[in-house]
Amino acid sequence: MAKKWVYAFSEVEAAEQAVGGKWEDVRALLGGKGANLADMTRLGVPVPPGFIVTTQACNAYQQDQRFPDGMWEEMLDHLKKVEAATGTLFGGDANPLLVSCRSGAKFSMPGMMDTVLNIGLNDQTVAAMIQLTGDERVVYDLYRRLLQMFGSVVLGIPDEPFEDAIEARKKLRKVKLDVELSAEDWKALCVTFKKLVEKEFGAPFPQDPFEQLRMAAEAVFKSWNGKRAVDYRNAAGISHTLGTAVNVQTMVFGNMGDDSATGVAFTRNPATGEKLMYGDYLINAQGEDVVAGIRNTQPIAALQKEFPVLYAEFLAICDKLERHYKDMQDVEFTIQQGKLWMLQTRSGKRTANAAVRIAVEMVNEGLITKKEALLRVTPDQVDTLLHPQFELEAAKQARKNGKLFAHGVNASPGAAVGRVYFDATTAEQKAKQEKQDVIMVRPFTRPDDVHGMLAAKGILTSEGGATSHAAVVARQFGVPCVVGAAAVKIDLERRRMQVNGTQIKEGDWISVDGTNGDVFVGNLPTVAPKLEEQHELLTLLGWADEVAGLQVWANADYPADARRARSYGAQGIGLCRTEHMFFEPERLPIVQRMILAQTSEERVEALHELLPYQQKDFEGLFKAMDGYPVIIRLIDPPLHEFLPSLEKLIEEVAEKKALKKTRGLKAKEDLLARVRAMHESNPMMGMRGVRLSIVMPEIVEMQVGAIFRAAVAMTKKGIKVKPEVMIPLVGHVNELKFIQPRLESVAKKVMDKAKVQIEYKFGTMIEIPRAALTAGEIAEVAEFFSFGTNDLTQMTYGFSRDDAEGNFLLKYVEDEILPVNPFQTIDRAGVGRLMAMAVEEGRKVRPTLEVGICGEHGGDPASIEFCASIGQNYVSCSPFRVPIARLAAAHATLKQQVN
Amino acid sequence: MAKKWVYAFSEVEAAEQAVGGKWEDVRALLGGKGANLADMTRLGVPVPPGFIVTTQACNAYQQDQRFPDGMWEEMLDHLKKVEAATGTLFGGDANPLLVSCRSGAKFSMPGMMDTVLNIGLNDQTVAAMIQLTGDERVVYDLYRRLLQMFGSVVLGIPDEPFEDAIEARKKLRKVKLDVELSAEDWKALCVTFKKLVEKEFGAPFPQDPFEQLRMAAEAVFKSWNGKRAVDYRNAAGISHTLGTAVNVQTMVFGNMGDDSATGVAFTRNPATGEKLMYGDYLINAQGEDVVAGIRNTQPIAALQKEFPVLYAEFLAICDKLERHYKDMQDVEFTIQQGKLWMLQTRSGKRTANAAVRIAVEMVNEGLITKKEALLRVTPDQVDTLLHPQFELEAAKQARKNGKLFAHGVNASPGAAVGRVYFDATTAEQKAKQEKQDVIMVRPFTRPDDVHGMLAAKGILTSEGGATSHAAVVARQFGVPCVVGAAAVKIDLERRRMQVNGTQIKEGDWISVDGTNGDVFVGNLPTVAPKLEEQHELLTLLGWADEVAGLQVWANADYPADARRARSYGAQGIGLCRTEHMFFEPERLPIVQRMILAQTSEERVEALHELLPYQQKDFEGLFKAMDGYPVIIRLIDPPLHEFLPSLEKLIEEVAEKKALKKTRGLKAKEDLLARVRAMHESNPMMGMRGVRLSIVMPEIVEMQVGAIFRAAVAMTKKGIKVKPEVMIPLVGHVNELKFIQPRLESVAKKVMDKAKVQIEYKFGTMIEIPRAALTAGEIAEVAEFFSFGTNDLTQMTYGFSRDDAEGNFLLKYVEDEILPVNPFQTIDRAGVGRLMAMAVEEGRKVRPTLEVGICGEHGGDPASIEFCASIGQNYVSCSPFRVPIARLAAAHATLKQQVN
Repeated sequence: MAKKWVYAFSEVEAAEQAVGGKWEDVRALLGGKGANLADMTRLGVPVPPGFIVTTQACNAYQQDQRFPDGMWEEMLDHLKKVEAATGTLFGGDANPLLVSCRSGAKFSMPGMMDTVLNIGLNDQTVAAMIQLTGDERVVYDLYRRLLQMFGSVVLGIPDEPFEDAIEARKKLRKVKLDVELSAEDWKALCVTFKKLVEKEFGAPFPQDPFEQLRMAAEAVFKSWNGKRAVDYRNAAGISHTLGTAVNVQTMVFGNMGDDSATGVAFTRNPATGEKLMYGDYLINAQGEDVVAGIRNTQPIAALQKEFPVLYAEFLAICDKLERHYKDMQDVEFTIQQGKLWMLQTRSGKRTANAAVRIAVEMVNEGLITKKEALLRVTPDQVDTLLHPQFELEAAKQARKNGKLFAHGVNASPGAAVGRVYFDATTAEQKAKQEKQDVIMVRPFTRPDDVHGMLAAKGILTSEGGATSHAAVVARQFGVPCVVGAAAVKIDLERRRMQVNGTQIKEGDWISVDGTNGDVFVGNLPTVAPKLEEQHELLTLLGWADEVAGLQVWANADYPADARRARSYGAQGIGLCRTEHMFFEPERLPIVQRMILAQTSEERVEALHELLPYQQKDFEGLFKAMDGYPVIIRLIDPPLHEFLPSLEKLIEEVAEKKALKKTRGLKAKEDLLARVRAMHESNPMMGMRGVRLSIVMPEIVEMQVGAIFRAAVAMTKKGIKVKPEVMIPLVGHVNELKFIQPRLESVAKKVMDKAKVQIEYKFGTMIEIPRAALTAGEIAEVAEFFSFGTNDLTQMTYGFSRDDAEGNFLLKYVEDEILPVNPFQTIDRAGVGRLMAMAVEEGRKVRPTLEVGICGEHGGDPASIEFCASIGQNYVSCSPFRVPIARLAAAHATLKQQVN
Repeated sequence: MAKKWVYAFSEVEAAEQAVGGKWEDVRALLGGKGANLADMTRLGVPVPPGFIVTTQACNAYQQDQRFPDGMWEEMLDHLKKVEAATGTLFGGDANPLLVSCRSGAKFSMPGMMDTVLNIGLNDQTVAAMIQLTGDERVVYDLYRRLLQMFGSVVLGIPDEPFEDAIEARKKLRKVKLDVELSAEDWKALCVTFKKLVEKEFGAPFPQDPFEQLRMAAEAVFKSWNGKRAVDYRNAAGISHTLGTAVNVQTMVFGNMGDDSATGVAFTRNPATGEKLMYGDYLINAQGEDVVAGIRNTQPIAALQKEFPVLYAEFLAICDKLERHYKDMQDVEFTIQQGKLWMLQTRSGKRTANAAVRIAVEMVNEGLITKKEALLRVTPDQVDTLLHPQFELEAAKQARKNGKLFAHGVNASPGAAVGRVYFDATTAEQKAKQEKQDVIMVRPFTRPDDVHGMLAAKGILTSEGGATSHAAVVARQFGVPCVVGAAAVKIDLERRRMQVNGTQIKEGDWISVDGTNGDVFVGNLPTVAPKLEEQHELLTLLGWADEVAGLQVWANADYPADARRARSYGAQGIGLCRTEHMFFEPERLPIVQRMILAQTSEERVEALHELLPYQQKDFEGLFKAMDGYPVIIRLIDPPLHEFLPSLEKLIEEVAEKKALKKTRGLKAKEDLLARVRAMHESNPMMGMRGVRLSIVMPEIVEMQVGAIFRAAVAMTKKGIKVKPEVMIPLVGHVNELKFIQPRLESVAKKVMDKAKVQIEYKFGTMIEIPRAALTAGEIAEVAEFFSFGTNDLTQMTYGFSRDDAEGNFLLKYVEDEILPVNPFQTIDRAGVGRLMAMAVEEGRKVRPTLEVGICGEHGGDPASIEFCASIGQNYVSCSPFRVPIARLAAAHATLKQQVN
């Protein structure tokens, strides 16, 4: 049987049969657009008739550089059928058939290939069309468009001479806009264009409609191997052997009088998701007029009054399309002389709000399953829903009025408005005592700035990248934050900052948009969504939890964080950083005393003072997490982080010495000596974590004491506590073997004394490459692993995050040396490989090993997918990202089920 | 056939037959000691007759807690044969047989199990022995020893009461030493001891010799499961199921008159290796008298005069033993009444010198193969031979006279003597201008101290560990160095240092022993060996090269280093650190100008100035390495290392500001701002290596230009150059893809212009864990890998070497949390695993991939063995370690061949 090269829109079943029934293969054969038009036709939707030349024909053409045998004859045959169906004649002088000729590959390649409209117009049919429409201006406009498109697309004439001619005409007529040109003008331009074609191409414009069609179809085939298309496919990873189909379709016109119209519509409100038709139309107009906004469009509901019967038909069609495609549709339609035609349907773009509402309502309507609904919403959309935003209009106005002060890295999403303060202590004071809304501004932040950052509504820094200290802390606490706004010159001494002359003094208002990195002068209005009010989202996340193969826990240091985490649906605390508690103003002096202690007794005494504080913190955590596990990480940072900075001390001592100020000099010098002795060249890889605990076990012994005292106290109050003690920075199993038994004995003593037995675990972070490489050994001692992917990424890549992000890493991502910032999404080939090894080899030794992640990647959807794929039990992230992670976890599982 | 439980020393063939012929199994059956005695007996060496109760008997005993059936009868039978052979009678009153009863397992467990001597003595046989020897004192001493040993070993009586009794006797006689006690005294003590046994044990000492033997044999069996022995086996990893044999052997005595003697000897000189009998003996003495040094011993040569016949027999035996065991032997012998008995033979300990000479001479004598010779010398012995040492006697005296000033980490071996200077510039000046011998002393060193370190004879620091900057540089340049001598208080301002009151001022002499970490006050004499004079060593290393499966290359930055490397036998340069060249005083200002350049033009101009310097360096290297590959690493350290230190600038600016000194303030402040901007929290993981090259490619473009200009120039002079350009710190293949083509085009331009084609390679260091994890990808671009195991270890372990070694790492090694310092010997489980992965996956993609190591581990024998095991092509180390590495490489290959 000879190959069939052409399918009518009505022949979708034949196409299905030809490829063996799979829709995917129909799309491959007919292209996406053609398959879709055929699909709509099958549904009984009124689609202007036409036919599809298959991608196979395209491939045959590419091979022989000519139409395959029989193809053209099939096309002519189908053209006849279209004439018959529409009562028109191609090239006829009464009711001429005009067609479009469009490309259409399996995968959409927007704008990459060619289209020719109004094929069939020539000097004769123009007259017939004028007769038919009674609008000379419109018809000559159509004709000159054909001349122009055919000229450039089919004959390869540059567009400029055409546009130049139009401009010349406008100049002549002393008008500015195309619409101001008359029928006469367009008629004259058609003459000019024909001359232009003949001059540039060396032959006259083909008046024969069949010749036009033949050449247009060939041009579409050729465009498949045009440079633009090839580049696009290379970039998008689309195979070059797919070929494109050619869609030949009857032209319809919404500008053929007052019984004609054209419009676009969404089957539901794309902003809110409400189930109400949403869109615009124009009477007696062309499709592009609706979009161009030259004339005032009518809301779609008005159609009901003007064309009640057609509107009912339209609603029924839309409903049918929604049911068929099981999604909200974005449709284009034209009414030509009282006849409704559907030109296109596709899934409609929507806001995050709408996405959630539509997904949930469609489940309730029985249209889609819960799993399908989950996949209809992206984690990023959930993110958007949870952070306050500036009112769009207000931001637009501010930008227009030159109030955009600076732009930086969007480090922590959300909108914040407040008064600028340039140090943590002032910021905290203004916020707490004067109840001001505060934006803390610093060149960069340090751990001892945290109290100010927590008190602030927003944070702005001029240095650092997306994972600088400021960014990490801000995300952790959900404070909107822009970092690395390099144009901002901060003058800490004069308490002001400026960008190109615009100056902001301490106390002035600014507005910080952590979602997109914008910083505005002044006070912009915001809208602030709340999770508990977002019922559809809550429903969706509930479904996510049912589906997800791994849990979502949260990183929380304080009881308030833990409560928020629970309210956002976290099923555990994956990381409580105990040292943050040490930075609280009332505790820091005790901590410093402990560090500077000359004897073990002095140290233990200071630790005794700290113990009740820590115990209280833990009690609050356990209470908030009643029945859920709480992983508490023992002290991790190097001790010098709790002391004044070396640089500051050097400066102070040099100053005192230069001025011969002996008062207090000795004490400062002593302190400097101590700080210098503790100074490290690379503190990230120095004396911290378990290393510190081995050299100075008193601190962690105190911490474990506090954990178990808290656990005992809460247990006695009827609360179910599940403490898990996490030992950080382990690189060799012997470190665990050294410290863990000591700590377990502290725990045991507390429990024995209280006669209370508590279910607990001891485990470790996997954040040193060597720990991952020897996970089998480490799992012999550790009962759980938690991937500290921040440090693991730092060490696997040899990137110091603090240094890299403000420096070469941005360039790396910009230049695509790295496909993605590895501190945002797990690098699967390197870091991920270590993680996969660790899970596999750890579980081989201890099948019940609990495995999670507590690095920032725990809140990143792509990373969550990876975590699911290697069989982790949970991911842990900032409380604010818990909802996002819950959805991402569900997605991960659903995608695994597909694969 | 009933099992045979007992073998005479003369039945070694029967034992071999019983186990199937393998000597290993004979040792398992008879124990090491028994097998050896039997072996000597077979050789016809006169060994006092005896027999061995097998380890199988021991195991049977352990199971049933009684002698297996027939064992005791076999022992009695063998005892009869011994009596017949020696003409004695066990318990006889004329010529009584005395025997020893010793344990002897397959593997030596020194001191872990029990021995009883003089079995067979009792109140009757004592008389017979006195008769026989005519020495009452000796015989009663033997008897009391039996009573004491039997009491403690067999009967479990503590040793104290016996020793107390001896002390009491000495007090009574008002003497201090055992030897001052008379026959009377020992006789009296025998009475006391017998009473003691009866009292403590509850039964009298068994007078029946057979009972003595039975009980002693049982005690040996029991001692196999004694706590000491079990602990030892657990620690040494020896199986508990091996069991011990019991050796029963005729006692012989060298103290039976002037026709008796006893001595120890080496078959060659253990200090020099000369082939001459070496040892001491004593007439009419016991073995322990020779060792104790109470009487003046005779040199073994004197034996020739006193016992010419016996001496000839002795020489023949020694020769036979050497030929049999194919090694220099350490023998013990006794002459009892004119009869020579050999009591023991084993391979003798020797100095490094002797080890080399003996090994080489034995090959020449046809005694051993070259491969065997290679395995007879350890790489550490070669190390010892290559560094100057203090004269042993002088060091001993200095210690005695309180001249030991301090002790630190032995960072770079060798002895150095010189005057102390406390900064690099003074040190260099004194050395170069005044031709002084200089010891540079600093708390720690920095890269800009290198010029002083190179000028110094030795280096001493009070801070840092075995891989601190000082240590690494010192080893690299073979400068003796002691680091981390924490007791030394250095007062840089007053130009002096002290330890506990001993003070050393600038200009004073000290002597630094980098081999053992000692530092002496004053000027100690040294001995300095030279490789070219050590002919045997040269011969041995030549054999090593024939055998070794991987080559030894050297790390060399300067032509002089390269020449040394060649003279030490290096077959390539594995690492030339180009940045060291930047620190040279005449270049540093240009380098700083280049770094601080405000425009690209300024930078390129400064680089143009540097180019001729670099080219000249490379020309020298290529010339020195004519025909051998030279790997040149492009700039690696962060640029701020070439600028003044941040801390110093802060101090200077603060001082100027405090004193309102405006002159030069602005410039300093500007410099401070630049340095601060370049400051990094963790410079090790910051903007350096390929990262710097990607952001600022001008530097490496200049370097590659210089490399290829040098290569072209040398090629034109007829020198065969093989440059290999190494790009450091690659973690992602895209980094290489970005920079390598640019650099190759620079190389090509230079070669094209000169019309010279040069054989070259481009490759990378594998020093980032991610590089190892993605080696397959990287090998698609890189033509060679060189493991930078210093950094790879830092990042795999998350240890900052600078911080860790002076800090927790020493504690880790001390407490055995880490079995070994991973910066000295490759951590196989972690770092090694990454290396093995990288080689395997790299070679899968590029089978011809050249793989080496240029980290300090390249000079460590255990690490070299590992490198060989994963199939590396070469190791590269400090020129001074090349000879050691050559031997270690041969060892690695030989061990692989065995496995």
